[in-house]
Amino acid sequence: MSGQDHLAGRVICAGLGPGAPDLISLRAARAIGNARHIAFFRKKGRAGRARTIAEGLIPQGSTEHAMEYPVTTELPFGSDEYRGLLARFYDDWADRIATLARSEDVVVLCEGDPFFYGSFMHLHLRLQTRARIEVIPGITGMSGCWTATGRPVTWGDDVLTVLPGTLEQAELTRRLRDCDAAVIMKTGRNLSRIRAAVIGAGRIADAWLCIEGTMPGQRIARLGDAGDDCPYFATVILHGNGRRPLAGAAE
Amino acid sequence: MSGQDHLAGRVICAGLGPGAPDLISLRAARAIGNARHIAFFRKKGRAGRARTIAEGLIPQGSTEHAMEYPVTTELPFGSDEYRGLLARFYDDWADRIATLARSEDVVVLCEGDPFFYGSFMHLHLRLQTRARIEVIPGITGMSGCWTATGRPVTWGDDVLTVLPGTLEQAELTRRLRDCDAAVIMKTGRNLSRIRAAVIGAGRIADAWLCIEGTMPGQRIARLGDAGDDCPYFATVILHGNGRRPLAGAAE
Repeated sequence: MSGQDHLAGRVICAGLGPGAPDLISLRAARAIGNARHIAFFRKKGRAGRARTIAEGLIPQGSTEHAMEYPVTTELPFGSDEYRGLLARFYDDWADRIATLARSEDVVVLCEGDPFFYGSFMHLHLRLQTRARIEVIPGITGMSGCWTATGRPVTWGDDVLTVLPGTLEQAELTRRLRDCDAAVIMKTGRNLSRIRAAVIGAGRIADAWLCIEGTMPGQRIARLGDAGDDCPYFATVILHGNGRRPLAGAAE
Repeated sequence: MSGQDHLAGRVICAGLGPGAPDLISLRAARAIGNARHIAFFRKKGRAGRARTIAEGLIPQGSTEHAMEYPVTTELPFGSDEYRGLLARFYDDWADRIATLARSEDVVVLCEGDPFFYGSFMHLHLRLQTRARIEVIPGITGMSGCWTATGRPVTWGDDVLTVLPGTLEQAELTRRLRDCDAAVIMKTGRNLSRIRAAVIGAGRIADAWLCIEGTMPGQRIARLGDAGDDCPYFATVILHGNGRRPLAGAAE
């Protein structure tokens, strides 16, 4: 950070946790409560989930910067053109935030834990040489989900694997066979493939689906019983069974 | 929980996060601040790390229950006799807490996130049919550590594996070769074996050691440069590189 010592402001990324407003940390709550500039991503036309979680903490008179994802009906999602559009969107916001942070703090709201699959990384990549950055960790969304299931996800010497639900089915199955506990993120429209992978690994009886963990719409179901219609904020949890260390391994 | 509806009190396990007192959640802070009974594990003769993290929140006049691990110089650690001694210790405290929670709330302090390798599980196992239990998730210790390294641990479609440092070297190496990002817990006296495993996986250049993440004694070093003397609260972090989804996998 020594290269940025002359800057008066900081970019403070506040991890908001899994969704319940009172699962925000004391440090993040104070940063938000003192903020004069608050930035957050959202879809056009929506309030924004991060903004909604932090709602009760945002001070009157602060300036809000809604970073609205570019939408277009002309470009296919995932195309090079679409990626280019997104890159320019992040470039533009990084410029604006870097400019503000020369003279004052800017708080960026981030759901979950910013450095764990967080959207903040697109700004972080672009700001790390240009601004003093402070990241406040948060409770992960997956932690909100396994807590909602009412029992430990890992204990003893369990190995935990966190898998994106976008992986191919055979790859998901292979990895689910090779771990004690597992979390599958980015479930949403990948649900039927994920379920097939869990069945293939022989673990459907242990698998839980948690939708909107810690939020008002929270639902917990056995993955085997869940319908195919699954919102974006859904996570599959397989609990570990408390593996014992191998003989002699701890010596 | 319907079987426990007649009970007036709850056992509230408050996740304390990675160590910095202001990384406690608003919900956990409120539970501690309102507590009349507070229980926490500690080693005999120590203040206790959980108690120390929560120090500033514990109300005057609350009753503290220090659950001190049994120590004995006669029994080897890990022997059947020692395990039996520990089991009776947990049984005894579960009984005492269940009795208290018939009439009033008892807050149990737990470092990190209670359902993620948390010591609370020994009480949870024994209390789940006898008490109304509420678990407040916390920021994990590993999250405090990867945040301290100053860059994202996972992004894109990275696979993250969480490994106990107690695993055998060959097993650690095999698993480190098969993931994008990795966290190795329970480092402490296992450090030299863990380092050998990371070297075996060809990943020593990417590996970081974080000691006492978010706490006053926080230190970050490249694993390749770290000495063999490593305290218990140390975690090895290997960052992912933002894996792209396989072609067609997201469809």
